[in-house]
Amino acid sequence: MRKAIFACVSLLSMAIPVLAGPTPVAPNGIALYPDYMSWRVVAPSYREDKGHIRVITGNETAVAALRAGVKPLPDGSVLAKVAWKAVKHPSFPVATEAGEFVQVEFMVKDAKKYKETGGWGFARFVGKDLKPYGKDASFVNECFGCHTPVAGNDYLFTRMAGTP
Amino acid sequence: MRKAIFACVSLLSMAIPVLAGPTPVAPNGIALYPDYMSWRVVAPSYREDKGHIRVITGNETAVAALRAGVKPLPDGSVLAKVAWKAVKHPSFPVATEAGEFVQVEFMVKDAKKYKETGGWGFARFVGKDLKPYGKDASFVNECFGCHTPVAGNDYLFTRMAGTP
Ligand code: HEC
Ligand code: HEC
Repeated sequence: MRKAIFACVSLLSMAIPVLAGPTPVAPNGIALYPDYMSWRVVAPSYREDKGHIRVITGNETAVAALRAGVKPLPDGSVLAKVAWKAVKHPSFPVATEAGEFVQVEFMVKDAKKYKETGGWGFARFVGKDLKPYGKDASFVNECFGCHTPVAGNDYLFTRMAGTP
Repeated sequence: MRKAIFACVSLLSMAIPVLAGPTPVAPNGIALYPDYMSWRVVAPSYREDKGHIRVITGNETAVAALRAGVKPLPDGSVLAKVAWKAVKHPSFPVATEAGEFVQVEFMVKDAKKYKETGGWGFARFVGKDLKPYGKDASFVNECFGCHTPVAGNDYLFTRMAGTP
């Protein structure tokens, strides 16, 4: 019985949508992808200057292309970068762990629709309320500007973290 | 046609087992779980002193329990900690990224079988060859010793990285 209850709790906890309210939408029309924490790991990252620790995940299309070494990534690829405050572990201070949630960002591939920004649509959702970033759709210039130096890697900084 | 080829490449790349040779086995009998990179993210971490950047993933049982706040974790829970060398991104040096693969470690829950080490079986596989760590089964004393300060959290340092 305890096992059955546990199984139910597990299933429910997996099924409950991450968001209670309506899905937030960025000023350029990109809606939050609520299942980004269920996608596969692309890589971890750490931003010393910002004091953030991150995980980059990708949907099936993106991860399959990254694993196969296909560049540019095909339409339908979505990458998420999830950021938390970097905090020192109280029992082991040389270990830096994920603290409070900071934001989640997305890059959505549609070569035609987002032709002017390297085929990528950008979106950022900030803080506990997942507040869409940007006053209007021009916020993407900031994203695209910073990602332009890596145009040769399909505008992606991150490479798939390799394992044997 | 190109789409069809891509779909096949994707499927194959997902289906190909991670390992070419036989599955490595730790001196205490725990075999490598080859699908650890397909498990869900528990959290990222960064070890300044070792120069490692990491991702902790968990199998379905472990992640369901962590999300539901169930402690101790139920039998069948497996956590993986994957470590890469921490390297500065060549185009953006304040960003620390995953370089070369270092090792993967596992904690496997079986309250009865691993009674003497908090219900957890430990295993570590090192480098490109995933060489099992430890001369004999006593290597677990090192693992268990370091994890003992967090006995109150079911011997786990890491908590599920929260998202709204
Ligand atoms: C100041 C530079 C800068 C700006 C501005 C910027 N990025 Fe990035 N972005 C990076 C770097 C560097 C990485 C590599 C990972 C890291 O540092 O955490 C990255 C990684 C990403 C990733 C993971 C895929 C990849 O390229 O590695 C996504 C998704 C992303 N950024 C989205 C955005 C969005 C959306 C915006 C704007 C709202 C944005 N970025 C603005 C520098 C920037
Ligand atoms: C010197 C201390 C130390 C030793 C020895 C140690 N660990 Fe850990 N372990 C940690 C810390 C600290 C973390 C938290 C994450 C991090 O720092 O990357 C951790 C995290 C883990 C995790 C993820 C779950 C969690 O508790 O956060 C696994 C799995 C793990 N260790 C396995 C092992 C295995 C297997 C061994 C021995 C072969 C081992 N550890 C030895 C300190 C240690």
